[in-house]
Amino acid sequence: MERRTLIKSLMAAPLLSGLAAAGSAGAAPSTGELLRPARLRRGMTVGLVTPASNAWEDEDIRFAIDVVKSLGFKVKEGANLYQRTQYLAGPDAARAEDFNRMFADPEVDAVFCLRGGYGTPRILPMLDYATIRQNPKILLGYSDITALLNAIHERCGLITFHGPIAAQNFTDYTLEEFSKVLVRGEFPVRLGEAPPFEGSPGRVERRNRVTRFRGGSARGRLIGGNLTLMCSLLGTPFEPDFRDKILFLEDVGEAPYRIDRMLTQLWLAGKLDEVNGIVFGKFTDAETSGNTFSVEHVLRERSAGLEVPVVRGLMIGHVDDQTVVPVGAMAELDGDSGALILQEPVVS
Amino acid sequence: MERRTLIKSLMAAPLLSGLAAAGSAGAAPSTGELLRPARLRRGMTVGLVTPASNAWEDEDIRFAIDVVKSLGFKVKEGANLYQRTQYLAGPDAARAEDFNRMFADPEVDAVFCLRGGYGTPRILPMLDYATIRQNPKILLGYSDITALLNAIHERCGLITFHGPIAAQNFTDYTLEEFSKVLVRGEFPVRLGEAPPFEGSPGRVERRNRVTRFRGGSARGRLIGGNLTLMCSLLGTPFEPDFRDKILFLEDVGEAPYRIDRMLTQLWLAGKLDEVNGIVFGKFTDAETSGNTFSVEHVLRERSAGLEVPVVRGLMIGHVDDQTVVPVGAMAELDGDSGALILQEPVVS
Repeated sequence: MERRTLIKSLMAAPLLSGLAAAGSAGAAPSTGELLRPARLRRGMTVGLVTPASNAWEDEDIRFAIDVVKSLGFKVKEGANLYQRTQYLAGPDAARAEDFNRMFADPEVDAVFCLRGGYGTPRILPMLDYATIRQNPKILLGYSDITALLNAIHERCGLITFHGPIAAQNFTDYTLEEFSKVLVRGEFPVRLGEAPPFEGSPGRVERRNRVTRFRGGSARGRLIGGNLTLMCSLLGTPFEPDFRDKILFLEDVGEAPYRIDRMLTQLWLAGKLDEVNGIVFGKFTDAETSGNTFSVEHVLRERSAGLEVPVVRGLMIGHVDDQTVVPVGAMAELDGDSGALILQEPVVS
Repeated sequence: MERRTLIKSLMAAPLLSGLAAAGSAGAAPSTGELLRPARLRRGMTVGLVTPASNAWEDEDIRFAIDVVKSLGFKVKEGANLYQRTQYLAGPDAARAEDFNRMFADPEVDAVFCLRGGYGTPRILPMLDYATIRQNPKILLGYSDITALLNAIHERCGLITFHGPIAAQNFTDYTLEEFSKVLVRGEFPVRLGEAPPFEGSPGRVERRNRVTRFRGGSARGRLIGGNLTLMCSLLGTPFEPDFRDKILFLEDVGEAPYRIDRMLTQLWLAGKLDEVNGIVFGKFTDAETSGNTFSVEHVLRERSAGLEVPVVRGLMIGHVDDQTVVPVGAMAELDGDSGALILQEPVVS
């Protein structure tokens, strides 16, 4: 789902003017230990890293470099970009060192992940959290990158960003979400709204409607990302604090019974009772053949006993039109309208 | 892998004489809160339950009943045996009530699970642990049943049994392992040794050899079962205590990167450093196509830094020839010879 071989909307460089025009969207008050990285500006240098799996093909690496350049940035290639060790982009120590170096490097302004796959939990103990804390930068990625986003926010107080990988096409939708969060630094602003109809109305409505599971309104800091990765942090020293958070979850390629098992683990661990609200993003390629509950049933049932707003269907996850969700930022979840509203600046 | 439609070795009832001859294999000293259930004897009544998924077909239920009868027991059918609610054998409350009732019922001497599948984590908070503690009985099953085996041992002190489901064929090997642990109550006794050659030597050797990852000898009480289920207990109130244990693990249908992720979670949670030894059983149908590490590589690598004996290949898991492992019993793991030796009586 992540792989794209065409740049749809970037090569015409519509963002360049947006980047050039980007100014301050308001003062960024420090909230305790919260660290806001510098917003993206034209000409900045983006470090491109592979902390999890390697690129599928070399052409995907060149594509990712083109994507980042077309967004208006210089690219600093990670040392491990072309490494392949089965499903990992090189040995753990090398991937961790590459990642740490990008935060230490004064030439690098932001860090984008080329892709997810699998591998970030393996390097969590090898990250240099002190250096990351001393050099706050935008960190962008999703899927397996979820472990990094949440662990780094937890340990460093840095706001991190659940959003597109570099090796994917940026649709107009994705580009606009990316721009409003990371470039223009807008707030308050709605994140991940269902895009307007494309293609046949029936199909798009089914996929892109935001569904209310439980109404009401709640505030909290955002944590979450990939459900599998969030569960794989449970019981470890990298388990995030779920209390009073707005939890967002997505996944890909997991059968409903697996989604059930993972949500049941979060429930048994008390996490679903600790959060102030839940946003289910997209659960794509869920292998729903056979004698199974639907994903909708599983999500709805596990939410049924909760007393917080729960919505489903925001554009979070393995989809072409994808929003950017800042991990650690204060947000409001309006369960009645299905809106997730960013409440504070997330870049400085 | 669990499903079998033929009874191979049971209908000739070779076990009946064994059951009739079963006597006391020695006094069972109480070790703290440890509870040993009564050994299996001919004519006992076995409660047949479906705490996870339903049977595939009604004929599988009839088959399971025939298996239990052919072992020399009467069968008390669980109220949920024929229930099907998508991948569950009926609603959670009904499955939990059925399970609780079997332990409370004075007519029922032992509880066998018809199959695993998925669903036991959902009912963990609904089990009547006090009643189970007051009515210690043999509980037998594996795969998804892992959550019950470990949670019940943890909460009740009852020794539970990781072994065949009722809806599977008992090979000669399986029957002998079943008999020596649950009927004859032997100790000290080796569990899960690789069976002798069957079929072509090359194939069998590859599958059934016990491999030493790290030598040495260790003692500890047994915990474990299905890797996925053990991980799904982490961070929950049903997480077992891993300290000083001999941990045994198996899985089915999980790609190496998933096995990697789960072992990494156990490692990050400190559990691999807490145990006194590790026994990897069988990891069947592991989807090893594509650009992936082998299962062997994943298991070996995650064990490399440990200072306890680690072996791979005992007959634990989704295989025809399957042993019975008593959860909670004291065992010795000899990493040099690859032997897992039960050190105390597990039935009374």
